Amino acid sequence: MNLIKVQLNKMSLVEKNIIADNSIDWKDLGNGVRRKVMFYDKKMMLVKFEFKKDAVGALHNHPHLQLSYVASGVFEFNLGGEKKIIREGDVYNVPSGIQHGIICLEAGTLIDVFNPIRQDFLEN
Amino acid sequence: MNLIKVQLNKMSLVEKNIIADNSIDWKDLGNGVRRKVMFYDKKMMLVKFEFKKDAVGALHNHPHLQLSYVASGVFEFNLGGEKKIIREGDVYNVPSGIQHGIICLEAGTLIDVFNPIRQDFLEN
Repeated sequence: MNLIKVQLNKMSLVEKNIIADNSIDWKDLGNGVRRKVMFYDKKMMLVKFEFKKDAVGALHNHPHLQLSYVASGVFEFNLGGEKKIIREGDVYNVPSGIQHGIICLEAGTLIDVFNPIRQDFLEN
Repeated sequence: MNLIKVQLNKMSLVEKNIIADNSIDWKDLGNGVRRKVMFYDKKMMLVKFEFKKDAVGALHNHPHLQLSYVASGVFEFNLGGEKKIIREGDVYNVPSGIQHGIICLEAGTLIDVFNPIRQDFLEN
Protein backbone atom coordinates (compact mmCIF):
# COMPACT_ATOMS: atom_id res chain seq x y z
CA MET A 1 0.00 0.00 0.00
CA ASN A 2 2.81 2.42 0.84
CA LEU A 3 4.53 1.41 -2.37
CA ILE A 4 1.36 2.28 -4.31
CA LYS A 5 1.18 5.66 -2.58
CA VAL A 6 4.81 6.37 -3.46
CA GLN A 7 4.14 5.44 -7.10
CA LEU A 8 1.03 7.69 -7.20
CA ASN A 9 3.01 10.58 -5.78
CA LYS A 10 5.55 10.20 -8.59
CA MET A 11 2.86 10.42 -11.27
CA SER A 12 2.29 13.72 -13.04
CA LEU A 13 -1.09 15.48 -13.08
CA VAL A 14 -1.74 14.14 -16.57
CA GLU A 15 -0.70 10.59 -15.70
CA LYS A 16 -3.07 10.59 -12.71
CA ASN A 17 -6.03 12.30 -14.33
CA ILE A 18 -6.16 11.38 -18.02
CA ILE A 19 -7.15 7.77 -18.64
CA ALA A 20 -6.86 6.30 -22.12
CA ASP A 21 -9.65 3.87 -22.94
CA ASN A 22 -7.17 1.15 -23.93
CA SER A 23 -5.18 1.48 -20.70
CA ILE A 24 -7.88 -0.25 -18.62
CA ASP A 25 -8.94 -3.87 -19.02
CA TRP A 26 -12.58 -4.94 -19.10
CA LYS A 27 -13.91 -6.99 -16.21
CA ASP A 28 -16.33 -9.61 -17.55
CA LEU A 29 -19.48 -9.78 -15.41
CA GLY A 30 -21.01 -12.63 -17.44
CA ASN A 31 -24.25 -12.77 -19.46
CA GLY A 32 -23.10 -10.19 -21.99
CA VAL A 33 -22.10 -7.43 -19.57
CA ARG A 34 -18.62 -6.09 -18.82
CA ARG A 35 -17.31 -3.00 -17.05
CA LYS A 36 -14.23 -0.81 -16.69
CA VAL A 37 -13.68 1.46 -13.70
CA MET A 38 -12.04 4.31 -15.63
CA PHE A 39 -11.39 6.75 -12.77
CA TYR A 40 -12.14 7.40 -9.11
CA ASP A 41 -10.94 9.71 -6.39
CA LYS A 42 -12.43 10.50 -3.01
CA LYS A 43 -15.76 11.79 -4.27
CA MET A 44 -16.54 10.66 -7.81
CA MET A 45 -16.11 7.54 -9.94
CA LEU A 46 -16.62 7.00 -13.68
CA VAL A 47 -17.42 3.50 -14.89
CA LYS A 48 -17.95 2.25 -18.44
CA PHE A 49 -20.45 -0.62 -18.95
CA GLU A 50 -20.74 -2.55 -22.20
CA PHE A 51 -23.88 -4.59 -22.97
CA LYS A 52 -24.47 -7.14 -25.70
CA LYS A 53 -27.96 -7.31 -27.23
CA ASP A 54 -30.47 -8.85 -24.75
CA ALA A 55 -28.07 -8.50 -21.80
CA VAL A 56 -29.77 -7.44 -18.60
CA GLY A 57 -28.74 -5.19 -15.72
CA ALA A 58 -30.99 -6.64 -12.99
CA LEU A 59 -33.12 -4.34 -10.85
CA HIS A 60 -31.10 -3.03 -7.90
CA ASN A 61 -30.65 0.09 -5.82
CA HIS A 62 -27.88 1.88 -3.96
CA PRO A 63 -27.56 5.00 -1.85
CA HIS A 64 -24.99 6.50 -4.27
CA LEU A 65 -26.12 9.19 -6.69
CA GLN A 66 -25.73 8.02 -10.29
CA LEU A 67 -25.68 10.20 -13.40
CA SER A 68 -25.32 8.32 -16.69
CA TYR A 69 -24.73 8.95 -20.39
CA VAL A 70 -25.75 6.55 -23.16
CA ALA A 71 -22.60 6.46 -25.32
CA SER A 72 -24.12 4.00 -27.80
CA GLY A 73 -26.88 1.42 -28.21
CA VAL A 74 -30.57 1.25 -27.32
CA PHE A 75 -31.90 0.18 -23.91
CA GLU A 76 -35.15 -0.22 -22.01
CA PHE A 77 -34.49 1.54 -18.72
CA ASN A 78 -36.62 0.89 -15.63
CA LEU A 79 -36.56 3.60 -12.97
CA GLY A 80 -38.73 3.02 -9.93
CA GLY A 81 -41.08 0.79 -11.90
CA GLU A 82 -41.54 3.16 -14.87
CA LYS A 83 -39.94 2.17 -18.19
CA LYS A 84 -38.54 4.25 -21.03
CA ILE A 85 -36.49 3.56 -24.15
CA ILE A 86 -33.15 5.36 -24.12
CA ARG A 87 -30.55 5.63 -26.86
CA GLU A 88 -27.21 7.20 -27.83
CA GLY A 89 -26.90 10.75 -26.52
CA ASP A 90 -29.56 10.46 -23.81
CA VAL A 91 -28.84 11.01 -20.12
CA TYR A 92 -30.40 9.58 -16.99
CA ASN A 93 -30.16 10.24 -13.29
CA VAL A 94 -30.75 7.69 -10.54
CA PRO A 95 -31.74 9.34 -7.26
CA SER A 96 -30.38 7.75 -4.09
CA GLY A 97 -32.12 4.49 -3.20
CA ILE A 98 -34.38 4.27 -6.26
CA GLN A 99 -34.72 0.80 -7.79
CA HIS A 100 -33.43 0.66 -11.38
CA GLY A 101 -32.48 -1.82 -14.07
CA ILE A 102 -31.85 -2.07 -17.79
CA ILE A 103 -32.43 -4.38 -20.76
CA CYS A 104 -30.21 -3.96 -23.81
CA LEU A 105 -32.20 -3.82 -27.07
CA GLU A 106 -29.22 -2.94 -29.31
CA ALA A 107 -25.62 -3.50 -28.14
CA GLY A 108 -24.09 -0.41 -26.55
CA THR A 109 -22.12 1.34 -23.86
CA LEU A 110 -23.19 3.31 -20.80
CA ILE A 111 -21.04 5.83 -18.90
CA ASP A 112 -21.99 5.92 -15.21
CA VAL A 113 -20.73 8.55 -12.78
CA PHE A 114 -21.22 7.84 -9.08
CA ASN A 115 -21.03 10.07 -6.00
CA PRO A 116 -19.80 8.82 -3.61
CA ILE A 117 -17.67 6.15 -5.28
CA ARG A 118 -18.88 2.54 -5.56
CA GLN A 119 -16.45 0.89 -3.17
CA ASP A 120 -18.01 -2.48 -4.10
CA PHE A 121 -16.66 -2.11 -7.68
CA LEU A 122 -13.12 -1.91 -6.28
CA GLU A 123 -13.53 -5.06 -4.21
CA ASN A 124 -15.22 -7.38 -6.73
CA MET B 1 -40.89 29.92 -9.04
CA ASN B 2 -43.77 28.30 -7.15
CA LEU B 3 -45.39 27.45 -10.46
CA ILE B 4 -42.19 25.71 -11.56
CA LYS B 5 -42.10 23.77 -8.28
CA VAL B 6 -45.70 22.68 -8.74
CA GLN B 7 -44.95 21.53 -12.29
CA LEU B 8 -41.86 19.60 -11.11
CA ASN B 9 -43.89 17.89 -8.40
CA LYS B 10 -46.36 16.70 -11.03
CA MET B 11 -43.61 15.09 -13.10
CA SER B 12 -43.03 11.36 -12.79
CA LEU B 13 -39.64 9.89 -11.81
CA VAL B 14 -38.92 9.10 -15.46
CA GLU B 15 -39.96 12.56 -16.67
CA LYS B 16 -37.65 14.20 -14.13
CA ASN B 17 -34.68 11.89 -14.51
CA ILE B 18 -34.47 10.64 -18.09
CA ILE B 19 -33.45 13.34 -20.55
CA ALA B 20 -33.67 12.68 -24.28
CA ASP B 21 -30.85 14.29 -26.25
CA ASN B 22 -33.29 16.00 -28.62
CA SER B 23 -35.36 17.49 -25.77
CA ILE B 24 -32.68 20.08 -24.91
CA ASP B 25 -31.59 22.89 -27.22
CA TRP B 26 -27.95 23.79 -27.79
CA LYS B 27 -26.66 27.09 -26.46
CA ASP B 28 -24.21 28.56 -28.98
CA LEU B 29 -21.11 29.89 -27.21
CA GLY B 30 -19.50 31.15 -30.44
CA ASN B 31 -16.24 30.21 -32.14
CA GLY B 32 -17.35 26.66 -32.88
CA VAL B 33 -18.42 25.65 -29.37
CA ARG B 34 -21.91 24.93 -28.06
CA ARG B 35 -23.28 23.31 -24.93
CA LYS B 36 -26.36 21.64 -23.48
CA VAL B 37 -26.98 21.36 -19.75
CA MET B 38 -28.60 17.91 -19.83
CA PHE B 39 -29.31 17.42 -16.11
CA TYR B 40 -28.63 18.88 -12.70
CA ASP B 41 -29.90 18.43 -9.18
CA LYS B 42 -28.48 19.62 -5.88
CA LYS B 43 -25.12 17.87 -6.19
CA MET B 44 -24.27 16.89 -9.74
CA MET B 45 -24.65 18.35 -13.23
CA LEU B 46 -24.07 16.75 -16.64
CA VAL B 47 -23.22 19.03 -19.56
CA LYS B 48 -22.62 18.14 -23.21
CA PHE B 49 -20.11 20.28 -25.16
CA GLU B 50 -19.75 20.11 -28.92
CA PHE B 51 -16.58 21.43 -30.62
CA LYS B 52 -15.93 22.08 -34.29
CA LYS B 53 -12.41 21.41 -35.61
CA ASP B 54 -9.95 24.06 -34.33
CA ALA B 55 -12.40 25.37 -31.71
CA VAL B 56 -10.74 26.23 -28.41
CA GLY B 57 -11.84 25.92 -24.80
CA ALA B 58 -9.65 28.63 -23.25
CA LEU B 59 -7.56 27.89 -20.17
CA HIS B 60 -9.65 28.40 -17.03
CA ASN B 61 -10.14 26.92 -13.58
CA HIS B 62 -12.97 26.42 -11.11
CA PRO B 63 -13.34 24.96 -7.64
CA HIS B 64 -15.89 22.36 -8.88
CA LEU B 65 -14.72 18.80 -9.41
CA GLN B 66 -15.03 17.79 -13.10
CA LEU B 67 -15.04 14.26 -14.50
CA SER B 68 -15.31 14.05 -18.29
CA TYR B 69 -15.85 11.50 -21.06
CA VAL B 70 -14.77 11.99 -24.67
CA ALA B 71 -17.89 10.88 -26.58
CA SER B 72 -16.30 11.61 -29.98
CA GLY B 73 -13.52 13.55 -31.67
CA VAL B 74 -9.84 14.20 -30.95
CA PHE B 75 -8.57 16.97 -28.66
CA GLU B 76 -5.35 18.35 -27.21
CA PHE B 77 -6.08 18.67 -23.52
CA ASN B 78 -4.02 20.91 -21.25
CA LEU B 79 -4.13 20.09 -17.55
CA GLY B 80 -2.03 22.27 -15.27
CA GLY B 81 0.37 23.06 -18.11
CA GLU B 82 0.88 19.45 -19.28
CA LYS B 83 -0.65 18.47 -22.63
CA LYS B 84 -2.02 15.17 -23.89
CA ILE B 85 -4.00 14.03 -26.94
CA ILE B 86 -7.35 12.51 -25.99
CA ARG B 87 -9.90 10.79 -28.18
CA GLU B 88 -13.23 8.92 -28.19
CA GLY B 89 -13.58 6.66 -25.17
CA ASP B 90 -10.97 8.40 -23.02
CA VAL B 91 -11.74 9.94 -19.63
CA TYR B 92 -10.22 12.85 -17.77
CA ASN B 93 -10.55 14.32 -14.31
CA VAL B 94 -9.99 17.96 -13.38
CA PRO B 95 -9.09 18.38 -9.71
CA SER B 96 -10.50 21.45 -7.96
CA GLY B 97 -8.76 24.68 -8.96
CA ILE B 98 -6.43 23.20 -11.60
CA GLN B 99 -6.05 25.28 -14.77
CA HIS B 100 -7.26 23.43 -17.88
CA GLY B 101 -8.16 24.01 -21.51
CA ILE B 102 -8.72 22.19 -24.77
CA ILE B 103 -8.07 22.50 -28.50
CA CYS B 104 -10.24 20.48 -30.87
CA LEU B 105 -8.19 18.59 -33.49
CA GLU B 106 -11.14 16.61 -34.93
CA ALA B 107 -14.76 17.70 -34.32
CA GLY B 108 -16.33 15.99 -31.34
CA THR B 109 -18.36 15.96 -28.17
CA LEU B 110 -17.35 16.00 -24.50
CA ILE B 111 -19.54 14.90 -21.59
CA ASP B 112 -18.67 16.86 -18.43
CA VAL B 113 -19.98 15.97 -14.98
CA PHE B 114 -19.55 18.60 -12.25
CA ASN B 115 -19.81 18.40 -8.47
CA PRO B 116 -21.10 20.75 -7.18
CA ILE B 117 -23.18 22.06 -10.07
CA ARG B 118 -21.95 24.95 -12.26
CA GLN B 119 -24.42 27.63 -11.19
CA ASP B 120 -22.82 29.94 -13.79
CA PHE B 121 -24.10 27.67 -16.59
CA LEU B 122 -27.67 28.24 -15.39
CA GLU B 123 -27.30 32.01 -15.37
CA ASN B 124 -25.52 32.59 -18.71
